Amino acid sequence: MPHLTLEYTNNLPALDVKQALLKLNQALLASGQFEEIDIKSRAIRLDDFLVGTSSGGRAFIHLRLSILSGRSLQVQQALSASLLHAMRECCADLHVGHLQLSVEVLEIDRKIYSKQMFIR
Amino acid sequence: MPHLTLEYTNNLPALDVKQALLKLNQALLASGQFEEIDIKSRAIRLDDFLVGTSSGGRAFIHLRLSILSGRSLQVQQALSASLLHAMRECCADLHVGHLQLSVEVLEIDRKIYSKQMFIR
Amino acid sequence: MPHLTLEYTNNLPALDVKQALLKLNQALLASGQFEEIDIKSRAIRLDDFLVGTSSGGRAFIHLRLSILSGRSLQVQQALSASLLHAMRECCADLHVGHLQLSVEVLEIDRKIYSKQMFIR
Repeated sequence: MPHLTLEYTNNLPALDVKQALLKLNQALLASGQFEEIDIKSRAIRLDDFLVGTSSGGRAFIHLRLSILSGRSLQVQQALSASLLHAMRECCADLHVGHLQLSVEVLEIDRKIYSKQMFIR
Repeated sequence: MPHLTLEYTNNLPALDVKQALLKLNQALLASGQFEEIDIKSRAIRLDDFLVGTSSGGRAFIHLRLSILSGRSLQVQQALSASLLHAMRECCADLHVGHLQLSVEVLEIDRKIYSKQMFIR
Repeated sequence: MPHLTLEYTNNLPALDVKQALLKLNQALLASGQFEEIDIKSRAIRLDDFLVGTSSGGRAFIHLRLSILSGRSLQVQQALSASLLHAMRECCADLHVGHLQLSVEVLEIDRKIYSKQMFIR
């Protein structure tokens, strides 16, 4: 942990996904809550999507951050806000008519999380 | 919010995914719980999957609905049931031997959710 | 339920994904907690990912197990540990320099879960 998932609709050709992952991971690292090596992120392109019931011209980017349980509400709100801020900067030049950005934070029960690291 | 994810196994060639997303979003809109523009859905095709331990002939479609926290149990149950109903109608003509449909509802902490909308 | 999602970074060419899903489903079945036919698993290849802020040479595999609410902490910990164990065995021959394995368990509210099975 943390695990970050960036979902983006496929009508955002100007989005630099690799750059976005780097900016988001840097924001998580800057929070001081995580070790660099523990931050694991991925981006998923959405080829089939729908916003509301009207087709065309609508795009969205959604971030889901999963963290181990036990952090305060304030810390979680700060993480959510800093991810939104970093994502917004990555979208400054997208020039899309309708774009929604959103961030959810999910707590994973620390007592049930299993992990193993192999480094040679 | 809400965010809806439709996962479907790739052995359902007759499934009309775009039509399914429209029917599901219409069901969410008809619930009266959400603004049209807030309903964000996506479909993910599963190319690698396994039901139980036996290969072949088994298909599934799974819906995950993420909503902001604070709605009553009754409202959440009604949302879950209406999504299952809408999905079932989309599957009426699939003619598959073994198909499982399922719907889960996940509450996202309203106090930690971040969102921004850009409309030009 | 249960639903299992295996995410793996695309720099693990020697990973046998189908074999991994089988081993994981067998581990879930061996737990005695689930019916064979209820175990639904999928694997998602991650083509865009980042571990920390440094590029190159880092891989991860993440498992998310969603189960209906109501099981004891001990049962959930045993499920998490047995999935990690099964996954580790599948990775014995990967020969990758840096690999992180992780397992999270998510409880889904039993009262809101909807399901239907069609078998002809």
